Order: sequence, then structure tokens, then C-alpha cells
Amino acid sequence: MARVRPLSGFPEWTPAERVVEAQLIESLRETFRLHGFAEIETRAVEPLDRLAGKSDAAKEIYTLGRLGAEPDAESKVGLHFDLTVPFARYVEEFQHALAFPFKRFQIQKVWRGERPQEGRYREFYQADIDVVGRDTLPAHLEVEVAVVMARALAALPVPAATMRVNNRRLVEGFYRGVGIDDVAGALRSVDKLDKIGPDGVRVELTGKGVSASAADAVLELARISAPDAGFVAAVEDLWATTPTIDDVAEPQAELREGLAQLVALVEGVNAAVPDTAVADLRIARGLDYYTGSVYETFLAGHEDLGSICSGGRYDSLVAGGGFPGVGMSIGVSRLVSRVIGANLARASRAVPSAVLVAVTDESTRPASNAIADALRARGIATEVAPAAAKFGKQIQYADRRGIPFVWFADSGEVKDIRSGDQVAADPASWEPPAEDARPRIVTS
Amino acid sequence: MARVRPLSGFPEWTPAERVVEAQLIESLRETFRLHGFAEIETRAVEPLDRLAGKSDAAKEIYTLGRLGAEPDAESKVGLHFDLTVPFARYVEEFQHALAFPFKRFQIQKVWRGERPQEGRYREFYQADIDVVGRDTLPAHLEVEVAVVMARALAALPVPAATMRVNNRRLVEGFYRGVGIDDVAGALRSVDKLDKIGPDGVRVELTGKGVSASAADAVLELARISAPDAGFVAAVEDLWATTPTIDDVAEPQAELREGLAQLVALVEGVNAAVPDTAVADLRIARGLDYYTGSVYETFLAGHEDLGSICSGGRYDSLVAGGGFPGVGMSIGVSRLVSRVIGANLARASRAVPSAVLVAVTDESTRPASNAIADALRARGIATEVAPAAAKFGKQIQYADRRGIPFVWFADSGEVKDIRSGDQVAADPASWEPPAEDARPRIVTS
Repeated sequence: MARVRPLSGFPEWTPAERVVEAQLIESLRETFRLHGFAEIETRAVEPLDRLAGKSDAAKEIYTLGRLGAEPDAESKVGLHFDLTVPFARYVEEFQHALAFPFKRFQIQKVWRGERPQEGRYREFYQADIDVVGRDTLPAHLEVEVAVVMARALAALPVPAATMRVNNRRLVEGFYRGVGIDDVAGALRSVDKLDKIGPDGVRVELTGKGVSASAADAVLELARISAPDAGFVAAVEDLWATTPTIDDVAEPQAELREGLAQLVALVEGVNAAVPDTAVADLRIARGLDYYTGSVYETFLAGHEDLGSICSGGRYDSLVAGGGFPGVGMSIGVSRLVSRVIGANLARASRAVPSAVLVAVTDESTRPASNAIADALRARGIATEVAPAAAKFGKQIQYADRRGIPFVWFADSGEVKDIRSGDQVAADPASWEPPAEDARPRIVTS
Repeated sequence: MARVRPLSGFPEWTPAERVVEAQLIESLRETFRLHGFAEIETRAVEPLDRLAGKSDAAKEIYTLGRLGAEPDAESKVGLHFDLTVPFARYVEEFQHALAFPFKRFQIQKVWRGERPQEGRYREFYQADIDVVGRDTLPAHLEVEVAVVMARALAALPVPAATMRVNNRRLVEGFYRGVGIDDVAGALRSVDKLDKIGPDGVRVELTGKGVSASAADAVLELARISAPDAGFVAAVEDLWATTPTIDDVAEPQAELREGLAQLVALVEGVNAAVPDTAVADLRIARGLDYYTGSVYETFLAGHEDLGSICSGGRYDSLVAGGGFPGVGMSIGVSRLVSRVIGANLARASRAVPSAVLVAVTDESTRPASNAIADALRARGIATEVAPAAAKFGKQIQYADRRGIPFVWFADSGEVKDIRSGDQVAADPASWEPPAEDARPRIVTS
């Protein structure tokens, strides 16, 4: 028998920490539901060929086998590493049972066989929202999804979130207008800005056949950032001073369309949750996959976590085409781990119980049970003392668990063990203060 | 790319079916919390040596591998097949962070590589409650756990549950008193009553060295059943007329202790949820593992499901000893599958939204959004129409999703699309009827 020990990368929480995780998840659920998103869950496994085709790192996929049995080809499955691959399969499989545009949220664990490190888990919760249409999807849903996520994050006990956003059509129009044919290749180079700096990127771009003036323009574009529509003038100025291709009408229209969409996104999000969205034209990650808005989200003072909520607009959820959509995904476990680890919030107690009913001696346990049931019937979480010990020991039982009230069946009195106040009370009508009714999240 | 298809044994639900599953699970949670049980979750994986040692069917354990990588010995893990093995490990690992007796509930998916068949899944939800002490655990908790589960089941949209209960001490005392030394072996034979009948069991028992009179007595004991304390007289009568061993004082005391515990259990459960518990002395399954009360639960009219909620009292949760406890486990997915498949209940709608705010044309979308936000601010789940289509089409959008109300921003009126009633309404104060606020479970 192996020694009992944690498994690296598989986080587990104490009961009090689980209260924090469960309430964060419930808060996300509530925001998603308020905006009309329906919940689905998908099975934990997908066929390996579907998983491997969609992953950058096939080695990170956990495969399933059976103890002492060779899997046959048909049963070759692995654990899902995100909620997008299963969602795409679900939409294809259940399309006749769904009404489009389909707004769904999904909060489940996913598994990745990464080398574990701070904030990188092998098993973790993700919370995804997506809206998918059958054939078309209006652009205003790119704003709606970002607004929902901005509100979802604002409702959590975490510092302010900044959503850094960009738009593929803006970038595509600009890049093509200045003569770059391999837009995806250029984006991959620009994505290395942090790693290799502007000079490194310029070398890469010119190596890919990008002209010097175009490379300069691309680097200049990546410097543009604004928390409002202010970025439009900067892009227009740059565009006006950069040599473009002869037949520039089509890319220019694309650029203008992207600019308008990005303005709508930044203004829409900031109207809903002020000081949240920032247009950041250096964001390249995901732009080779997404076709419209892209989002990354950082927490003030916790930028080291990387983006805690990312996503974008895509033209086709499934391989065969069709089902355009827009979605965002929160890395819930990474967030919860930081909330707990940095003591941003904690549970007011580990147990649901607001009341412990004391037991004088075992012969009167039924009377204590009756009091507990009268309280439970009115939604008040209640425990009965496990043993007819001395009252001091029963109060200690409550104190250890953070249960705020002890009810004495024989005297008909209830004691707030924090203040020591003890009053006569009727189990048919007594209520704990609202803030003590259930464990709550206390921020530091 | 594999064709998109269901995987046998891995159930998935439509959004409306997921509402049923989610609300069933939330109902269980609420009952558990009302009784003071704290929630935990454990990682999906455990070391293989811990899993294999605890399973009757090692072949059913799913092992984890990595695509294109041989797992090293240290990382040999598999998916948990129940919530007891991980709970035992959790208690051992976290014991210094826990207060005992520790009441926990745990609702998670488990995986078993069984041959899939009706009601047998490879991935399914279980809902477990356990109370564990560190060194001792009072017997009245064996009643409490059964009461909590009886209430949890009574709150679900399923037919009446019958909890069939027995007691290991009663059986052990009786068996040993009539001269049976290998009690576990005898129990394994009695467990085959349904399969091989009383004559078959008698042959097996005598083959194991049990005397003819003891075999008869054991079979007679298995015929005793009562929904109240009535079984005590029947057992006492049988005891009085059966030859016992010379030194019978100790087994007789054990028998009497078991009788008293079983009376307390049946009466306690029936006082809480009338007509639920039945003492059934033929129940042998699990008695070789459990040390006190054992429980099996069947649904009226759905006995073919087998026991949907089972468990018992054990003396030691962990291999090294210590941590006596009592627990029960509901097979949630099997229950949900029957509720859906037999149309016992369905969701009033698939989406959370109570209201769809119509959009007259895209230029007035912000006004529609503002109405939606005013409703959401008061907890009313609301969607805004995705396109400024004709009102008939927008009403159809709501109708397809079961959204009961459509709000017309320009006229300031809200229409109940079921009755056709349309009234002027203020988004700052209008409320939907309580039964329409969120999707609810409608029983057939």
C-alpha cells in the first residue's frame, strides 16, 4: 500500500477551502444563468483521434486503459483537456435537440499531463461560456460574451480584472493592406514580442519576406493600446503614413470593420463594468485561430497568473464547417488556488451548520432532534451534538467547526458562542442573523 | 476523424435533461447541508495499488497513461471507481485539518469499465454521505445517516423509497449462537437465496459444516421482515426453539444488542419519513464487510433498478485501523436516467431565462440591453433577442426555448406568450410569477 500523500498537480481542498471553491463556482453559475446561458455537462472522455488532432501537445493527453486488459482500437479514448473539444462534439451530436443560437455554460474538471508547477495543474476546473449559431452569428454577441465574463469576474472575491482585447479583422486588414500575405506567420512572430523584443521580431518578419516598412508598421501597431475608442485615431494615423498595396480597398474595409467592432467591444464592456476593457493591439495569441474578437484577462496584482479568462470569436466550431461562435474560458482552479493561497478570501466556517443543538443526556436526544428538525424545516442548517458530554465540551464542538449558535434543549435557550449572549428562543420562529445562516466568503 | 457518436456507458443529457440532473443534485446537497454535512471533493485519480486492493473487479479499473509516453512506476494511477476509497485516503491525509466526528458529503463522477447495460454506466455520479469518528462513533449516528438519506430521497421527484435494513451484530450473534463459526462464509451462501433458493443455500451451508438445525434456523431468520419492532418477537421465538451452543451468553448479548439497534433504526427512520424503513433479516450483502447497520433502498415500481442507495456501519475506514464510521451512497446517474427515461419528471424549460427582451431594430439594442440589465439586477434571468427580426420570429425564439415572457422595449409591455396576456410593466419592479422564475421540475 502506497503511503498516503498528495499527488503533484492534483489539488485538493480542506472542507473550509472547498466552501470557497464551491461558492466561487456557484457565483459563476448564477451570473451565467442570469444572462440566459443553459448548463450542459459532457462525458470526461473523447475518442483519442479527436483529442490528438486538437491539441498542441499530444503528450499531455491522458489515455485510458484497463487494468490487465489491452484496449481494443474502438475503445481508444482519453480524458478531455479542455471543454471546447467536447462541446464541439456535443453540438454536432445533439444539434437536432438544440435551439440556435445556443448559449451554454459548462463547468467541469479537465485533465492535462503537464509537468506540474505553481498554478499549473494536471486536474482542474474550467468554466466556459459559448454562444454558437448554426450558420451565422451576429457580432454583438462578441460584446455580450465579454460583458457576461466581466460581470462574472466582478462578482468574485478577486481584485479588479483587466480584459485586454484585440480583433482579428483589424489586424488581418492592416497586415494585408501593408503587403503581408502570410498573416498567420507574421502573427506568430509578433506573439514573441515579450520573448525576443521588437528587434527580434523585426528580424523574423523580414526573414519571412515582410518589407522593412511593413515590419515597422506592424511593430508600431502592436504599441497601440487604449481603454476607449482612442486607439482608432492612432491606427488611422499609422495607416495613413504607411505604404500600402495598390489594391487596398478590400483590406482597408476589413480594417475599418475590425476597428468598429473593437470600439463596440471596449465601450460595451466598460459600460457594463467600468475600467475593465482595454484595446491592446499587441495581442496576437489565438489570432491565428480566431476570426474576430480575442480576449485575455489579467487580475490586478496577480499578473503572474497569466490570463485567467481567454477566448474569442471563431467561424466554425466543428471540422466540417458551420456553427460559428464566440466563447471564453476561465481557469477556475488556478483562480481558486490563488484566492486561497494569497488569502484573498476564506470561508466564515467549514460546516454548513448555523446551530448545534446540545444533548443533556442520551434519553433526551429525541427532544434535541425535534428542535433540530423544526429549525431544518425552515431552512436552518442544524446539527445535534454527537454525545451527551458536558456543555463546555459541546460548545467546544461547535467552536471547532465555527458553528455560531448552541441551542440548549432543556432551558429552551440559544447561545451565540462568539458574544456569549444567551436568550430564550422558540425553534418554530427563531432565525439566525442572515450573515450567519450559511458559511459566507470573507475577504481579507 | 471518428464519426460523432455516443460512447456506450457514458451518458450525456440535453440541456433540458441536464436541468433535471442539476436540480436533483442540488436538492441532495441542500438536504445534506441542512443536516450539517460539509462538502468535499477529491481528485479523480488514486494510486493503482490502493484502487486494486479495494475492488472486487480489478479489471473494471480504468488506468491512466500518456499518449506516446510510458508511465513510470511512481505515476501509476487510475480513476476512482467509488467515493469511499478516495474518502478513506482523504481522511488519513487531512486528519489534522478535520474535526471528528466528521460529517461529509461528496457528489462526484466515478468510473467503472463494466460491460455497459441498462442502468449500468461506465461514468456516473455518486452522492455519498459518511460520518466518521477518530476512535469511536456512537450508534445513534447509524440512525441519523439513514434519516438524512430517507429525507434526501423523499425530496426528489421519484416514487416512495423503501429502505431495507439489517444489522450485522444481530446476524453475527444469531449465527454464532447456533454454532456457525465461519459467519462470513455462511453469509455468502445466504446472499445467494434469490439465485439458488432455500434448498440450494441449505446444501451449501451443510457443505460448509453447518448443522441441519442451524441451517434451518438461518433460513428461517432470513424469512423475518417487519416495518416496525414486530420482528423482535419473531427472532426471539426462533432463538428459543433453536439449539444453541453451550457458551451462548456472549453471542446472545450480541444478538440482543443488534436487535435493539435495528429497532432504533427502523423506528427512527419511520418517525422521520413514515413507511420507509423495513427490517429485512435476509439482507446479507455487505454484512461480511460492515459491522453494524446495513442499508439497501428500493424505489416503488422501479425495483428492477436494484438498490439505489446502500451502505452501512464500518469499524475502520482505513487499513491501519481507526476512523469508525457509517455511510450511504446514492447512484445518482442511474436514478436520473430512470427519472428521465420513465418520464417521472421533466424540466419546465431548458434555459434559465424567464424573459426575452425583444429588439425592434439594431439601433435600439442598447435600450433592450438596459431593460435586461434592470431585470437581471433583481435576479431575473433574462436574454436579449439575438437579431432584430419580426416580433413573430422573436416570440418563436422564446417559444422554442420555453421562455415564458417577451418584453417589448418600445411599448414598455410584457407578454406572457402562453396566455397571450400583454401588460404594461416597469423593469425596475416587474416580477415573473414565482413558479416561472427559474426552470422547475414538473412531475408527471
